[in-house]
Amino acid sequence: VLEIDLAKRRLRVRQTESGAESWQNFDQLVIATGTLPIRPQVPGIDSTGIYGIQTLEDGLKLRRVLDAGNASKVVIVGGGYIGIEMAEAMIQRGLEVVLIDMLPQVMGTLDPDMAALVSDAVVKAGISLALGEKLEGFETGPDGLRSVITDRRRISADIVILGLGVRPNTKLAEEAGLALGLKQSIKVNDRMQTGADGIWAVGDCVESYHLVSRQPFWVALGTVANKQGRVAGINIGGGNAVFPGVVGTAVTKFCGTEIARTGLQKREIEQLGLDYATSRIEGRTRAGYFPGTARIVLKLHAERKSLRLLGGQIVGEQGSAKRIDVLVTALHAGLTVQDIIGLDLGYAPPYSTVWDAIQIAARRLGSELRN
Amino acid sequence: VLEIDLAKRRLRVRQTESGAESWQNFDQLVIATGTLPIRPQVPGIDSTGIYGIQTLEDGLKLRRVLDAGNASKVVIVGGGYIGIEMAEAMIQRGLEVVLIDMLPQVMGTLDPDMAALVSDAVVKAGISLALGEKLEGFETGPDGLRSVITDRRRISADIVILGLGVRPNTKLAEEAGLALGLKQSIKVNDRMQTGADGIWAVGDCVESYHLVSRQPFWVALGTVANKQGRVAGINIGGGNAVFPGVVGTAVTKFCGTEIARTGLQKREIEQLGLDYATSRIEGRTRAGYFPGTARIVLKLHAERKSLRLLGGQIVGEQGSAKRIDVLVTALHAGLTVQDIIGLDLGYAPPYSTVWDAIQIAARRLGSELRN
Repeated sequence: VLEIDLAKRRLRVRQTESGAESWQNFDQLVIATGTLPIRPQVPGIDSTGIYGIQTLEDGLKLRRVLDAGNASKVVIVGGGYIGIEMAEAMIQRGLEVVLIDMLPQVMGTLDPDMAALVSDAVVKAGISLALGEKLEGFETGPDGLRSVITDRRRISADIVILGLGVRPNTKLAEEAGLALGLKQSIKVNDRMQTGADGIWAVGDCVESYHLVSRQPFWVALGTVANKQGRVAGINIGGGNAVFPGVVGTAVTKFCGTEIARTGLQKREIEQLGLDYATSRIEGRTRAGYFPGTARIVLKLHAERKSLRLLGGQIVGEQGSAKRIDVLVTALHAGLTVQDIIGLDLGYAPPYSTVWDAIQIAARRLGSELRN
Repeated sequence: VLEIDLAKRRLRVRQTESGAESWQNFDQLVIATGTLPIRPQVPGIDSTGIYGIQTLEDGLKLRRVLDAGNASKVVIVGGGYIGIEMAEAMIQRGLEVVLIDMLPQVMGTLDPDMAALVSDAVVKAGISLALGEKLEGFETGPDGLRSVITDRRRISADIVILGLGVRPNTKLAEEAGLALGLKQSIKVNDRMQTGADGIWAVGDCVESYHLVSRQPFWVALGTVANKQGRVAGINIGGGNAVFPGVVGTAVTKFCGTEIARTGLQKREIEQLGLDYATSRIEGRTRAGYFPGTARIVLKLHAERKSLRLLGGQIVGEQGSAKRIDVLVTALHAGLTVQDIIGLDLGYAPPYSTVWDAIQIAARRLGSELRN
């Protein structure tokens, strides 16, 4: 698709194979153009040996290169979800891995103290962390890529993997005259309609609403995209569905370390100017005496005035991450810390302590809120 | 304690060792007398070889007998949580196990179709199930216990374990003149106060409130008791805490099968005369392609008029049971099926499918509610 003509309700399309162009009419249009990977325009960025991992084909291509066995030194640029997950995959292949990020922490969506727990796991797995280092370019030789240049040093590399995130792919929508919001994402209402009649937009290319901050929010996640697609489909089919918005949930894993977050992190709460309290506890995923009991660190934020939960973060061993869903549900429902303390959560020794770690953190937070 | 004298605010107590009796004054009194195991008054019930498992000492005693190695045939009476958990423990010791229950299903707190999944796992583990059989007595010989007699047959047994549940231990409270409720449990308000000034009661001996049925409810669980004790303690200390009530959550495990339930089951909903719809789905605990992906069967009930969730049940493999906590939180908050479909639950391939099994069941239920 080369152009969306809103007035005449038609699309200018080019056949990929033949190159032939034509106009195609529509009654209803769904824009689901997703994202484009962020590729920093630094010297050497187009060298052989530098891989993005946006599409399935990207992943297959990288795997073929690794399977050939000529690479031993991998530099990963970006310490977010993708960077961390790729670091796990590379270390499990026995490669030498350096992970760089310009932030002073990995996982920018976690508070620094929780991110430090992830860093510990990353370093323990044998990965070199280069935090607070800015990518400046790549050095190549006659055999291809030689090294990654940061503002502090030169790191030798056979392969570079870019994990710098994505941005909404909305050039078409913008040119058609649709209203854009955060990070150039397409503005939609809760039925997934754009401002133009019969034009819908869903997925990573649209702006969402954050139920906790009560502000517009942009997030690129398959779960959100899926839900939005369903809502648009029902509405186009004559039904009436709404997409309520998001609470900012994300989960990932690095080797044996489970990582989860939802709601607002410290930085976001402070940007909103809310008066808040915080608790952080270390608990167990199962009864202390039960085989397989594991460590879980849980952090909660709540608003002082309303006592409502604002966000939660989890870093722990097996059985930790999916506990975030209780906090997700609580955020959707606007529950307070006292509500969470009272929840009739499931308990048996193979599944939790008598007070689930979430409730231990909520009790601690209740005390903080009284101070 | 032999007697509670409410008028004079004192207790008549007998020293366990010396047998000496005296009166002890109190300002505030907390009654936490717990439960008594149900012991059917059938012939032979007091024979050697018949074990209850109410206290830690009961458990140690049974273990000593099993460790001696003279028992090979175990009959478990009662197919609820305790019966199922003891069946697991016995089969893991390599013993021959028969489990009997007068109900036509195990796990009476599950709907029959979900309980059937548990029965399948129990039978597959090599346990003989004798459902719909009523215990009539025990036959003993010169060497002690010989067999268990039901209304249908004689089952030979070296050891019998009773798992028939418990009832509130409230004789003292009743004699003191305190009001009793369901199953003779002590009536309390949401601050854990009985009707008498300065007299509190908590734990398995008190009546609770069910947040979904909006009726009095009685349940004997450590989590509930713990929360109630905390509330009473805060209030006695001059604070102001309330115990909101329960939603009927329980989780357990039989070998590799995880079992969870919350809210109302089919029978309870029908007793309340509510118009409801049901969905049942089979899903996966992780992405289908991810190592360790496991089966989860999930069943939901919702009210037709209000669309609010009424209850949920889960039977599945590893990673299934604790998902119940999302439904628990939803029940506390009074969420509808549409709310659950919209929840921003955590997704990554090691943790769930893109639509969590809970949301797949909620979507199916949404369709049922439209019919």
